[in-house]
Amino acid sequence: MTNLERIETALRAYLSANIPEPLCEAMKYSLLAGGKRLRPMLCLSACEMTGGSQEAALPLACALEMIHTYSLIHDDLPCMDNDDFRRGRPSNHKAFGEANALLAGDGLLTYAFEVILSEGPKYIDNAPRYYEAAAQIASGAGVKGMVAGQWADLSNENNASANAEMLSYIHARKTGALITAAVLAGGLVGHADAMELAALRDFGTHFGLLFQITDDLLDVEGNAEKVGKTLGKDAAHAKLTYPGLYGIAETKKMAGREAQSAKDALQCFGTRAAWFLKLADQTLLRSF
Amino acid sequence: MTNLERIETALRAYLSANIPEPLCEAMKYSLLAGGKRLRPMLCLSACEMTGGSQEAALPLACALEMIHTYSLIHDDLPCMDNDDFRRGRPSNHKAFGEANALLAGDGLLTYAFEVILSEGPKYIDNAPRYYEAAAQIASGAGVKGMVAGQWADLSNENNASANAEMLSYIHARKTGALITAAVLAGGLVGHADAMELAALRDFGTHFGLLFQITDDLLDVEGNAEKVGKTLGKDAAHAKLTYPGLYGIAETKKMAGREAQSAKDALQCFGTRAAWFLKLADQTLLRSF
Repeated sequence: MTNLERIETALRAYLSANIPEPLCEAMKYSLLAGGKRLRPMLCLSACEMTGGSQEAALPLACALEMIHTYSLIHDDLPCMDNDDFRRGRPSNHKAFGEANALLAGDGLLTYAFEVILSEGPKYIDNAPRYYEAAAQIASGAGVKGMVAGQWADLSNENNASANAEMLSYIHARKTGALITAAVLAGGLVGHADAMELAALRDFGTHFGLLFQITDDLLDVEGNAEKVGKTLGKDAAHAKLTYPGLYGIAETKKMAGREAQSAKDALQCFGTRAAWFLKLADQTLLRSF
Repeated sequence: MTNLERIETALRAYLSANIPEPLCEAMKYSLLAGGKRLRPMLCLSACEMTGGSQEAALPLACALEMIHTYSLIHDDLPCMDNDDFRRGRPSNHKAFGEANALLAGDGLLTYAFEVILSEGPKYIDNAPRYYEAAAQIASGAGVKGMVAGQWADLSNENNASANAEMLSYIHARKTGALITAAVLAGGLVGHADAMELAALRDFGTHFGLLFQITDDLLDVEGNAEKVGKTLGKDAAHAKLTYPGLYGIAETKKMAGREAQSAKDALQCFGTRAAWFLKLADQTLLRSF
């Protein structure tokens, strides 16, 4: 079984655990809608690279995907980005109504921690590191991480004087914090020592930025439908982006530098880092 | 220092821990707006009654209040109950806007688990019970508990065929699950044995119902302003309530029976249960 299959199987199993049907359906609609499973893949791969078994990281990996999915559902709501579509289908509130989408998001966020905490006793032999990994996830998702980034992103819409410092602040939190938490969590339930954890954190910082920069580039350089959608949204919500601030050519150079820094961060792992190096290259290439 | 003072002090301390200012302000607006602190008080008192020190229960108690507060913020949003006021002040979204209120709620929910997990290492000597208490809180707040209750409550608005069974289902989850989690969490970080935990669960079930029934009674029997507000809301959102289903006289009898059952549940604790017995009596009396 590949890591991706492990994640899909575990997510489906967690979502069939006695959750009332209509609520569960709204949670499944967004959680099982495909996607790259980037954060759980980072978590399992970091666990493997540091000598752990993927099994130990699986509840944490699934929790990361639940948290990511809740953030997308809430982000799409009319009071936030007001997006009618997500991954080519109606967004959650278009399919289930606003109130139910709000609750499906609240449910996924809470369930992420329920899964982590209810699975904890299985990992009793490694309890301090399992719960430290959980704390990293809560912190990355939270009011000093992802939620802070979303708040700052919203506050700086249509802010003509927003600058490079604010852009870095937003993306380090909105995207980078949960990605960094994912690799740290994997390393913690693996057997990463302090130096390896620092390397993983460094990778997370640069890779998170690379991911956001290339996401911004895809938004302005994507296909016609995407461009139209972005322009349409920009009229109402002018978000602070890398291409908007630096231009496309300079943004591409920044992406290249971040990809290199992300790869450099993992030198201490030698060839064990192969999956991560390939991921950094592929992420860079998607915007070229 | 009283338990209430302990809770207020700890909540303020957690909210001054380096959270970005504007987001923190919106979280504080609702979290530090007073209130009875019922859930944290239940948690600390259950810990004391079972021989623990309140200090061990304090992070869990604060997390319970953060979760309760997030649920109020999200409940008040226009797509949910659309309440402009809460505790005599503009509701969070009226003060900060809908998007920020959504994020303040998401932030409080996530921060509840961040507090629990980051404080965990302090309780290493009692780790299995500390984390089991945390799991009870996640479960009570979650998709088989409070979120499920809110979903069912929403789904049954204006449902003329909703019945007593559905009303019990809703309230056992919407109000009862987090209250039960509060007393169980306190008992777990105290030194409750299996029989005492069962007694606490039994108390939580009956007291949660008592609390909801008397809340319903206050809504229909309260002062003129309250009645006006309730009637105004009922036009758009006819919620399923005990007085609506059974009439006021029969509802009062039910409240009396639940108060008695709640008190009976704690017989094994003898005089140590004094605080809980008084609370049950006071809760019953508030609706007479």
